[in-house]
Amino acid sequence: MAFDFSNVTPGHLPAPATAKWSGFPQYNFVGGHNDPDSLPVDKLVASCSHVLQRDGRTLATYTLDSGPQGYLPLREFLVKKLNKYADITCTPDDILLNSGSLQAIDLINEALLSTNDTVIIEASNYGGVITRLQRLNVNIETVNVDEQGMDTNHLAEVLARLQAADTRPAYIYTIPTVHNPTGVIMTRSRREQLLTLAQQFNVPVFEDECYADLIWNAQRPPSLYAMDDSGRVIHVGSFSKTIAPALRVGYTVANWSLLAQLLSLKTDAGSGALEQMLLAEYCGRHFDEHLATLNQNLKAKLDCLCAAIDREFGTTAQYSQPPGGIFLWLKLPDTINTTRLAQVAASEGVAINPGAEWSLQPDAQQHLRICFANPPLATIDDGVKALAAICHREFGLPAFGANTSR
Amino acid sequence: MAFDFSNVTPGHLPAPATAKWSGFPQYNFVGGHNDPDSLPVDKLVASCSHVLQRDGRTLATYTLDSGPQGYLPLREFLVKKLNKYADITCTPDDILLNSGSLQAIDLINEALLSTNDTVIIEASNYGGVITRLQRLNVNIETVNVDEQGMDTNHLAEVLARLQAADTRPAYIYTIPTVHNPTGVIMTRSRREQLLTLAQQFNVPVFEDECYADLIWNAQRPPSLYAMDDSGRVIHVGSFSKTIAPALRVGYTVANWSLLAQLLSLKTDAGSGALEQMLLAEYCGRHFDEHLATLNQNLKAKLDCLCAAIDREFGTTAQYSQPPGGIFLWLKLPDTINTTRLAQVAASEGVAINPGAEWSLQPDAQQHLRICFANPPLATIDDGVKALAAICHREFGLPAFGANTSR
Repeated sequence: MAFDFSNVTPGHLPAPATAKWSGFPQYNFVGGHNDPDSLPVDKLVASCSHVLQRDGRTLATYTLDSGPQGYLPLREFLVKKLNKYADITCTPDDILLNSGSLQAIDLINEALLSTNDTVIIEASNYGGVITRLQRLNVNIETVNVDEQGMDTNHLAEVLARLQAADTRPAYIYTIPTVHNPTGVIMTRSRREQLLTLAQQFNVPVFEDECYADLIWNAQRPPSLYAMDDSGRVIHVGSFSKTIAPALRVGYTVANWSLLAQLLSLKTDAGSGALEQMLLAEYCGRHFDEHLATLNQNLKAKLDCLCAAIDREFGTTAQYSQPPGGIFLWLKLPDTINTTRLAQVAASEGVAINPGAEWSLQPDAQQHLRICFANPPLATIDDGVKALAAICHREFGLPAFGANTSR
Repeated sequence: MAFDFSNVTPGHLPAPATAKWSGFPQYNFVGGHNDPDSLPVDKLVASCSHVLQRDGRTLATYTLDSGPQGYLPLREFLVKKLNKYADITCTPDDILLNSGSLQAIDLINEALLSTNDTVIIEASNYGGVITRLQRLNVNIETVNVDEQGMDTNHLAEVLARLQAADTRPAYIYTIPTVHNPTGVIMTRSRREQLLTLAQQFNVPVFEDECYADLIWNAQRPPSLYAMDDSGRVIHVGSFSKTIAPALRVGYTVANWSLLAQLLSLKTDAGSGALEQMLLAEYCGRHFDEHLATLNQNLKAKLDCLCAAIDREFGTTAQYSQPPGGIFLWLKLPDTINTTRLAQVAASEGVAINPGAEWSLQPDAQQHLRICFANPPLATIDDGVKALAAICHREFGLPAFGANTSR
């Protein structure tokens, strides 16, 4: 009889994994995976060889020769890249490289949140942020999102109500550029209003721009970090969406009073150095051209997805075609429960994110998120067809479509 | 006036970093850094090119095609390597790849420890484990270490005393093979006694073998995991000491009841994939030969260090030459306070670990740890000379030595 660790774990932990991994689903519409065919393998090989030949010996020391903020040439690339793409003016000293932007989120939460603190977030949101905040036992105040991004009138109401209750939020968290899951890009005037409110109520702003480079027309507004001059904005980004998610490299840009605290909490002896080295070398040479190609390919997949949804779901599915990103946020009639739909679909090889995992709105269960970057075009098409058939079988909707076997 | 985040961080956090990184010290005798000249750069380049050409496209998916336990070929290599070097019989399903063994330690602590729990550890120990346990507010019970490893008679006393107080420890943590900081290898009979006691008191055993491959005569005893048949042993290891510390890849071997919990706590979307890919490819071809060369080079550095200490410190410094590893544990007379010595030495470019950071024993401040893997031979020699001069100036000891300028 083997020792059973489940008898000695504390009761408050998240439930253990229930099964060993058995491969990706046939129709994989979940997760931040990217397009394998857009991955520049040959150039990555060349960049990796080059940087390893030049700096490989420094792998013998923790954090190379760059210290705990991460590989200096990658921070230097980011200084240029953030200036060009997001209007940010900063130095390598203002940047902390992380093991993915998820580590950035965890460290920032550890630095700024205590139990029963209050945070403000967009009401539909990245599922990983929602689950993290719930596990930290903080109070989540939600603000509506419309086609211009976070509704700043609503934000003003929330801030005023909290102030009346003598509560200062620990931060306003936002995904301003290609919001997850709606894909909306916050307008410049909303950004200005958000910063004015943050100043007025003296609240830090936590800006997560991990999707911000994936915009079809390349018109990325200035980041909140760039527009602020008070030092209250924390800017987080990632290479997961632009280069490759399995490379776990993200970054935090913030003023030293925060970075100094994050550094003392980052007790991992540095993030993976080889991935930082590869990214510095590759991106320094090829980032712009790669991004242009990637966005073309992603746009083609989104077009394919929308065509399939229009054909298979017709008026049953409502959506706004996003100006960038890797996901589409669908709304279905209230007779359809997407939590149930996702369960049944998963058992038949179609993986989707039900709205309840990506939204705290009352109508969450009418929504679903479909990630389109990873499957080939034909698989997107087939997968939507399969999903529509399952939805019809379970809920009677969509009532008709191109799938004549229904 | 910039927003100051130190005004909004909770009071219980570790102190922020006080200064930006300004380079390694001239004589760097701290940290688990390795020998840059032993780093097989050309073969790493070849391995990296090969594996990227073959599997590079899978970087477009989180965790490649291997799932959350990590890159399957690296787990397959570990199955063979752990069998050959540590007598372990396991399958890839028993292994979780981590972002360094530090992540393994953090996840295991999160899975098994609550505030006010009790853990048992060796009385001199890895500083990073001591600080982690202190931050988690657990009660630390210490067991003496002698030239045979953890003193199991003392362990039996501690377990009996705790049992009498109705306390079952959350685990017994041990570094059995090349103990940090003493370098001792626990004898086989002590290992048997430890496992018998763990069984008798029904306590998990947490075995940290991150230095275990660095043994001059290649006589590594079976790991505790290999000798146990109850499933209570958690085995943790790393590639930091054998290949390169800046590659953040460690691993946990444990039964599924624990791995399932660790997986649900590991919310980082996978550890760095490229580093796992490189290690699988390189180690599968070259691990044995590389390790033999590395150990030769490390032994030469240790010999150089010991010669310098004998010459500069004479009878003032006591030590046992370790059978492997990358550090030497020195004992100095009780008139010398190594915490003070380390402070003064640091200000003069000589970095050492004072015993108080690496031991919970009453005589901790008479000890110091000197890491010898990173500096070149001449730097080791010069650094010991500089340290002896500082020690003489501050404490009057060593009274005489080869350094005739004193």
